[in-house]
Amino acid sequence: MAELKNDRFIRALLKQDVDVTPVWMMRQAGRYLPEYREVRQEAGSFMDLCQNPELACEVTLQPLRRYALDAAILFSDILTIPDAMGLGLYFEQGEGPKFKKPVQTPADVEDLEVISTEKDLPYVLDAVKLIRKALNGSVPLIGFSGSPWTVATYMVEGGSSKEFANIKSMMMNTPEVMHELLGKLADSVTDYLNAQIRAGAQAVQIFDTWGGALSAHAYETFSLNYMKKIVSGLVREHEGHRVPVILFTKNGGHWLEKIVESDCDCVGLDWTIPINEARARVGDKVALQGNMDPAVLYGGDDIIRNEIALILKQFGHGNGHVFNLGHGIHQFVNPDHVTTFVDAVHELSAQYHQ
Amino acid sequence: MAELKNDRFIRALLKQDVDVTPVWMMRQAGRYLPEYREVRQEAGSFMDLCQNPELACEVTLQPLRRYALDAAILFSDILTIPDAMGLGLYFEQGEGPKFKKPVQTPADVEDLEVISTEKDLPYVLDAVKLIRKALNGSVPLIGFSGSPWTVATYMVEGGSSKEFANIKSMMMNTPEVMHELLGKLADSVTDYLNAQIRAGAQAVQIFDTWGGALSAHAYETFSLNYMKKIVSGLVREHEGHRVPVILFTKNGGHWLEKIVESDCDCVGLDWTIPINEARARVGDKVALQGNMDPAVLYGGDDIIRNEIALILKQFGHGNGHVFNLGHGIHQFVNPDHVTTFVDAVHELSAQYHQ
Repeated sequence: MAELKNDRFIRALLKQDVDVTPVWMMRQAGRYLPEYREVRQEAGSFMDLCQNPELACEVTLQPLRRYALDAAILFSDILTIPDAMGLGLYFEQGEGPKFKKPVQTPADVEDLEVISTEKDLPYVLDAVKLIRKALNGSVPLIGFSGSPWTVATYMVEGGSSKEFANIKSMMMNTPEVMHELLGKLADSVTDYLNAQIRAGAQAVQIFDTWGGALSAHAYETFSLNYMKKIVSGLVREHEGHRVPVILFTKNGGHWLEKIVESDCDCVGLDWTIPINEARARVGDKVALQGNMDPAVLYGGDDIIRNEIALILKQFGHGNGHVFNLGHGIHQFVNPDHVTTFVDAVHELSAQYHQ
Repeated sequence: MAELKNDRFIRALLKQDVDVTPVWMMRQAGRYLPEYREVRQEAGSFMDLCQNPELACEVTLQPLRRYALDAAILFSDILTIPDAMGLGLYFEQGEGPKFKKPVQTPADVEDLEVISTEKDLPYVLDAVKLIRKALNGSVPLIGFSGSPWTVATYMVEGGSSKEFANIKSMMMNTPEVMHELLGKLADSVTDYLNAQIRAGAQAVQIFDTWGGALSAHAYETFSLNYMKKIVSGLVREHEGHRVPVILFTKNGGHWLEKIVESDCDCVGLDWTIPINEARARVGDKVALQGNMDPAVLYGGDDIIRNEIALILKQFGHGNGHVFNLGHGIHQFVNPDHVTTFVDAVHELSAQYHQ
């Protein structure tokens, strides 16, 4: 494998010196790009696109052709694992993900089998290999997975949810069933991320999009503990390099002190907590990733640059900052605004790395 | 007007001694009650129900007949103000609120007029008067309004939203237009709450359901500052009694220190922050309301009682706690579980008030 030409992202995750703050965006390969929409239409359904390694590779690379991003992220979905478990993932126009066979009973949970990524999700590993080859060391490739709790919410609710009535009922009334489901998912995610690492992913992120819907103690019991279990089972060195792990719990800012105990390298932040406050709370234990409101990209150049300047100033001098949005880029953002965003992070951050 | 027979709720808001912790629930008059669904069907649309003072009074009283609640809350909607401004509020089956004429341009904002509650929303004041009379001093009546920011999100998006693309674009690119809209709403809310107080509301709550979608500095500028302005314009004494004010920002736990500077009497909490942490941060400045996850009501008796015991223990001894859910009660909760909830708060809290 080619050595990395740009390793800012990896270095920042490991709290090492960098020349400027590295930057990437959650969902950087996505619907705001016309070239993505073209490939998406060509592919057929969203899942057809995910399951086609050549096309998944192509859309992964698209944002890197436009922008000076410091990392690529595998194009895939957080629900590939339950799909591989046989739940039948599909996407209805404008309605988000759905499952043909949601998990509704203890017997449904019992019937689920921990996945073998090599056997059950070869298309993901093929995509990782193709992307690594195509990147040719230009920037590192991020692999990812949903957290067990977040993936379970979709499996039990049958799709997206606001109130999480079914899964929270399961959690309250049959915690042993909930733990069985989360345990199978944790084992599956561990296998999935390790397979991605062995196929070429140089860092991994766990997306806990819905951990923030829980109370503090339920978060620890039903989400964080399973992410910790995954982190403890991950391959942390590959090809002679450290493979950093990022944990991102949306609306998880109250629990940073707990999250850093997971042995992750970096904690992702949404935009509700100022990054200086987060840094003061976690100290030198981990790097931080974030945390601009994606909606700032609706603003003009000055607005975007001012917000970036504020966040960089809040983080201040020192190592361990990966710039990112606080959640995925929105569909209707003007792609030219992203040029402003990426370039401004590099330009305005240089002064903090002298 | 009859003197209050049960003034625990008011006393707790003012941090005075109580025998047990008072309890009420957001959306306690609502769809989880079969008798509510009956009246709702009879009334026609949801807005027909809101606009009929006799029926609004009836559904306000329904939960008080079943449960030993320590307060009643006016049955109404946070979007009555924009409806009175001429935006044409309606509810589509399963889709939440919509506006026929959303606010889309600076001219739309300019055309809006601050409401006069007496003239524009007489049905709300008639309902308040009827409810006060019907309560006959049994428990206090809470009046309420949405916050300017939260109400504005629906006005500009035309309904519910996940990403708030339109209003955040307005906020970023034309802040002067955003401030004009929020200023008109703040003046309207002030008039609205004062009219409710004069009609008989004995405490008021401002619901900032979507303030938590903002960054810390945007929250302060575009949501909190307007709530502060409202609080400073409210009637705080009526009928010889203090009228306490509760501010509730969902997902606002990061900003408690700022919120208490608003001169409110009480801050409402969702369930993501442990109430002992909140109390440690706000000190003796305000009372706290909350903060059980509404989903706990899906659990059986032991689960509900254990969670209540935990929250009461977290708050500990001393005055200034109103027990509540961290958001509205869910539609599919078993009404019998609410009996367990209300009674357990009273039973289990007595030891903290000796």
